Amino acid sequence: MSAFPHPLDPLSIVESDSVRKAILRCRGQDNAIHFRSIYLEEPPKKELSSFLDLESVGKVTSQTPRPARIAKVQYDVIRSTRYHEYMESWVNVKTGSEVRHRAIDKAHQAALTTNEFREFSEHCAESPPFKKAIAEFNLPEGFVVTIDPWPYGGPDFGEEAPRYTQGLCFAKDTRSGNDDSNHYGYPLPIIPVMDTYTKEIVRIDRLATGGNEDGLSYGTHKKDIIAHCSPSEYVSELLSQPLRTDVKPLNVVQPEGPSFQIDGNLIEWQKWRFRLGFTPREGAVLHDVRYDGRSVLYRLSLSEMTVPYGDPRAPFQRKQAFDFGDAGAGRAANNLALGCDCLGVIKYFDAVMTEPDGKASVSKNVVCLHEQDNGIGWKHTNFRTDRAVVTRLRELVVQFIITLANYEYIFAYKFDQAGGITVETRATGIVSVVNIDPGKTSPWGNVVSAGALAQNHQHLFCIRIDPAIDGNQNTVVAEESLPMPMSKEFNPYGSGYEVRQTTITKSKFFDASPMTNLTVKIQNPSKRNPVSGKPVAYKFIPTASQLLLAHPDSIMAKRAQFAQHHVWVTKYKDGEFWAGGEFTNQSQKEVDGVADAVARSENVENDDVVVWNTFGLTHNPRVEDWPVMPVEIHQIHLRPADFFSANPAIDVPGSKNMASMLAPESSCCESSGDVQRDATSHLQGTGPDFDPKSKL
Amino acid sequence: MSAFPHPLDPLSIVESDSVRKAILRCRGQDNAIHFRSIYLEEPPKKELSSFLDLESVGKVTSQTPRPARIAKVQYDVIRSTRYHEYMESWVNVKTGSEVRHRAIDKAHQAALTTNEFREFSEHCAESPPFKKAIAEFNLPEGFVVTIDPWPYGGPDFGEEAPRYTQGLCFAKDTRSGNDDSNHYGYPLPIIPVMDTYTKEIVRIDRLATGGNEDGLSYGTHKKDIIAHCSPSEYVSELLSQPLRTDVKPLNVVQPEGPSFQIDGNLIEWQKWRFRLGFTPREGAVLHDVRYDGRSVLYRLSLSEMTVPYGDPRAPFQRKQAFDFGDAGAGRAANNLALGCDCLGVIKYFDAVMTEPDGKASVSKNVVCLHEQDNGIGWKHTNFRTDRAVVTRLRELVVQFIITLANYEYIFAYKFDQAGGITVETRATGIVSVVNIDPGKTSPWGNVVSAGALAQNHQHLFCIRIDPAIDGNQNTVVAEESLPMPMSKEFNPYGSGYEVRQTTITKSKFFDASPMTNLTVKIQNPSKRNPVSGKPVAYKFIPTASQLLLAHPDSIMAKRAQFAQHHVWVTKYKDGEFWAGGEFTNQSQKEVDGVADAVARSENVENDDVVVWNTFGLTHNPRVEDWPVMPVEIHQIHLRPADFFSANPAIDVPGSKNMASMLAPESSCCESSGDVQRDATSHLQGTGPDFDPKSKL
Repeated sequence: MSAFPHPLDPLSIVESDSVRKAILRCRGQDNAIHFRSIYLEEPPKKELSSFLDLESVGKVTSQTPRPARIAKVQYDVIRSTRYHEYMESWVNVKTGSEVRHRAIDKAHQAALTTNEFREFSEHCAESPPFKKAIAEFNLPEGFVVTIDPWPYGGPDFGEEAPRYTQGLCFAKDTRSGNDDSNHYGYPLPIIPVMDTYTKEIVRIDRLATGGNEDGLSYGTHKKDIIAHCSPSEYVSELLSQPLRTDVKPLNVVQPEGPSFQIDGNLIEWQKWRFRLGFTPREGAVLHDVRYDGRSVLYRLSLSEMTVPYGDPRAPFQRKQAFDFGDAGAGRAANNLALGCDCLGVIKYFDAVMTEPDGKASVSKNVVCLHEQDNGIGWKHTNFRTDRAVVTRLRELVVQFIITLANYEYIFAYKFDQAGGITVETRATGIVSVVNIDPGKTSPWGNVVSAGALAQNHQHLFCIRIDPAIDGNQNTVVAEESLPMPMSKEFNPYGSGYEVRQTTITKSKFFDASPMTNLTVKIQNPSKRNPVSGKPVAYKFIPTASQLLLAHPDSIMAKRAQFAQHHVWVTKYKDGEFWAGGEFTNQSQKEVDGVADAVARSENVENDDVVVWNTFGLTHNPRVEDWPVMPVEIHQIHLRPADFFSANPAIDVPGSKNMASMLAPESSCCESSGDVQRDATSHLQGTGPDFDPKSKL
Repeated sequence: MSAFPHPLDPLSIVESDSVRKAILRCRGQDNAIHFRSIYLEEPPKKELSSFLDLESVGKVTSQTPRPARIAKVQYDVIRSTRYHEYMESWVNVKTGSEVRHRAIDKAHQAALTTNEFREFSEHCAESPPFKKAIAEFNLPEGFVVTIDPWPYGGPDFGEEAPRYTQGLCFAKDTRSGNDDSNHYGYPLPIIPVMDTYTKEIVRIDRLATGGNEDGLSYGTHKKDIIAHCSPSEYVSELLSQPLRTDVKPLNVVQPEGPSFQIDGNLIEWQKWRFRLGFTPREGAVLHDVRYDGRSVLYRLSLSEMTVPYGDPRAPFQRKQAFDFGDAGAGRAANNLALGCDCLGVIKYFDAVMTEPDGKASVSKNVVCLHEQDNGIGWKHTNFRTDRAVVTRLRELVVQFIITLANYEYIFAYKFDQAGGITVETRATGIVSVVNIDPGKTSPWGNVVSAGALAQNHQHLFCIRIDPAIDGNQNTVVAEESLPMPMSKEFNPYGSGYEVRQTTITKSKFFDASPMTNLTVKIQNPSKRNPVSGKPVAYKFIPTASQLLLAHPDSIMAKRAQFAQHHVWVTKYKDGEFWAGGEFTNQSQKEVDGVADAVARSENVENDDVVVWNTFGLTHNPRVEDWPVMPVEIHQIHLRPADFFSANPAIDVPGSKNMASMLAPESSCCESSGDVQRDATSHLQGTGPDFDPKSKL
């Protein structure tokens, strides 16, 4: 390994700790400091691009100018128990000097840390008003209260809201003695709200438990609040049914090891080469993605997501999480386990995180890397010779998984051998439920377990694609396939259709249009494909998934402009990573998100462009989503479009997998296929009596 | 095995041959017979359903009434070389008696058989006018002419077209001596048209070779017609580049064998149970699909597809294949190979096919069955205990692959452990190209290889879902998620949204509507989910893929009504299997397809309904699609929606896969992750000189 870190390497423990000391030196002399995060500030693109381009051609030497290594530090200066000042400092890692700092306006709130979530539960449980509210419920013997901290959401118009945290409350059955008994089946209809700094419970919101017949009113709250609820266990030892015994092992075995090569955070696989980054807010990030030496992407990341709930009853207008901005996908990342989260040969990556005292800690196995087989990659059978040439579709998967209290997301970046990059999201975990009166149903959700109403909601994701199609100067083109009028001169039989391209010249948004096959092409207008003569490009078809349903005048909608259009094309600006704005926690509107970036109305033609793609899932829960929901999968496919001069996977060997085998006779109740059957007996109708059940 | 075949078992060889003899007896006395196909006529639903329901509860005995076993026979009675009469007979397999027959109106043409395709090539090559046309080209030494037979497509308005076959012509480089040299890179601009019965070449159509500047005119045909073309090899020994050597083996190993059980055509796996059928037209068909004893589907099949080409120049208005109706997916099915077409433990199924003389023949391995891992199935991590419960998503795949001259489709029905059924299509093979003058580009396609224009086209598929959600009496509901106005009474904060259901009462079509999250639910209105109180249902979200682009007044559009809407709901009718009508070959309009079925305006509420889903791919080829295209994948997800009373996969064991392993050090150039790196040197700036290239 090199004596120097790569400019894109996340901070090491030693680096992080030295930055902490620098902050304590310059900001902590007279103040207590509460650290939120310390992580690499990526170098300005201009500097970094020059370095990466030199590096890609092997021309970096000790004399090559290197971008300064800068850490970004987010922390509170604790002025009093009522007032923390949220600050950000940039520190030169090498010199330890603070190169910039800013105090964040009180209008904005920092993202919640794991520590703040933990503190909420502790203080809430001890709070007299909370205890009083709980005492109103007649919880059965053996049940205890369990609180899931949540971001407060967007305050209502005119509401004064200092830094708040709220909690969703449940009862947990402790009678089994099993700490993993699922409390989500026993929802309690109160939400305590805490002042995050003073730790005072400022309010306890009461939740409606009514159904169709109750409109927005509260319904018939009753003392025995969970008497009509039932267990919702998912850990094997508490299930009321036995586990399946007929799932025989399916192993992925790679006798010669993986096909990838790792050097620190540099990953090379099947002509692909990229750097893995990890940030507290985004989780895994990909940098400097190249194929066979040619640049494809400068950076690829999940930028934001929002999960608004569609229940119009107060206070659910504030049930809207921004899981990247409010908390942080990197902070919420699971420590992955061998043989559970993926199969085959796995490489794990750790991340350096920040404790409240600023000290670095290691979160193990937050990202995993492995290969997988995704069926046939390409096939052709020559019907004249009967020779079939068939290749498998091998993929390299960079995966991380986040847990947000009840819910899980599995994110994966997948590379394939044909130049494709797929961004996949899987939604799983436990859907959010509220208490509903016995026997009632509701227009705002589905009763997924007795007394538990899973509220309708949406998941709206935004990925940020910072392309570098053979360099940073790119142009976005929207290509549509359109019907043509019938005309003797141009379309005499009506069989023709037109492929029309619209060049995006100024920053703008537009929506998916599957009925015109709208395809977003990111081209390099300066470089032509030698075969087709067209500009080299990558493309994707934006999914026409439903956009934000909340009313445009609602706080929910105002704080999530990014969730209201599928495609946003902006001019690159250093540090502009956040589709929903930098500060989402308790925001009342999106500030400096994609909508503001587009509003700059900048040139994006043959320029350094960024493409943002919003997609999502309107999730009206099924009973089958309980107690833990089967994955709902969504994929975005980035594909080369005249980037290469042929199918890049044409050199993938079509060799036969020698480990595959025929199903043994034991799995087949008869030893031969249908065609060998002796049909004589039934043709003549003289067969013996039979009972088909015996065969089933 | 049983002495009686199951009513859904495809015909055995013995059965098929006995039916042939019956036809020769009753129809072949004074006439030559050309057989097209002999296959099982599925019993009327009324009879079969009763039998299947009894069978599912183990109550079939030798006394149980069984549907008569009937064969359908399609054949030509050869009246003269100019006139074949196309006939269909239904024969009682047990008695050998013809129970019904019909002579097909001359307005309709039978599907093309493999034999007719073969004959076309032979007769065409020997035809003097064809030889003359070829002689006009100055083919280089070592090149021979190769013809791909195609259906004739829809004749123009007013055109007299008896049974025709046409051919797309290419030159093949024989100099390598390799029969698998790819001829598609050398397209010749002629299409011979043959009278299929007389074997006369009736016409040779000339193809335009022009580009943008030529409009619909011919361009500059030249004698050296392929001088500007180049090789397009894909078989390994002819590739100009070496195969990759860094794809290390990835084996799927199932040490305890598969988790499925096979009894003839009955397949059982993970609470699923269904029967596999195979027809000459559809390929693999699924019957009587049940989960844990409850019926889900009566029948699932691929009904039709059409591939219209968007090039308005004559004669491409007739370049429109209906690959199920014109030829037959079953007839075109590949004989699959172990270790190439899937990994793991494989069960293959053969099919009984029909030779021109009516004799049965066996086509080996036309369907394969295997299990695969599809990542995480569900996961939840309890953040309080850090216990993660994670299960894999195991799938059972029924796959078949068809080759249609240049092109391949991979079709799969996938079952999962959470009650889901996925229908997947993968498009691969070689895109259809025509010759284009040197240096030109065209609005009608993309130059994917020198001189080869891959024309823009669409693939429009239609799957036929014959549901049986806890029985055959079902109701289709279109469920949409809709914004609500802001109102003090109903939506004070604007956060609410409405889920609105529209019951389909009369047969009708409608289109996908992703922006309202339109979900098609197939319910059993007589059965309520015990948890949610809602009717038990399965659902799917119709993909809003682009529909047919051809002008509504075109022949192309008239013959493919099914390709003009995404969802069709019809009342079940025995034998009504064909979305585009029974006779597509040379059709000028769709007859008795889904549009006509909908036009009957029948009750479909709480009735025996059929749901047809059209989806597709507008394929404007990329250079990367040449010479063999990477798969383009599309999936339809049928999912339970309040059919079960919890996640059906909750009992899948979350056991750890013991065969997974950490990536060995050898794949990592350094022995530890970033966090252990000693950062001192660069913090102090005293590191040694380095050349990062040496590390890459």
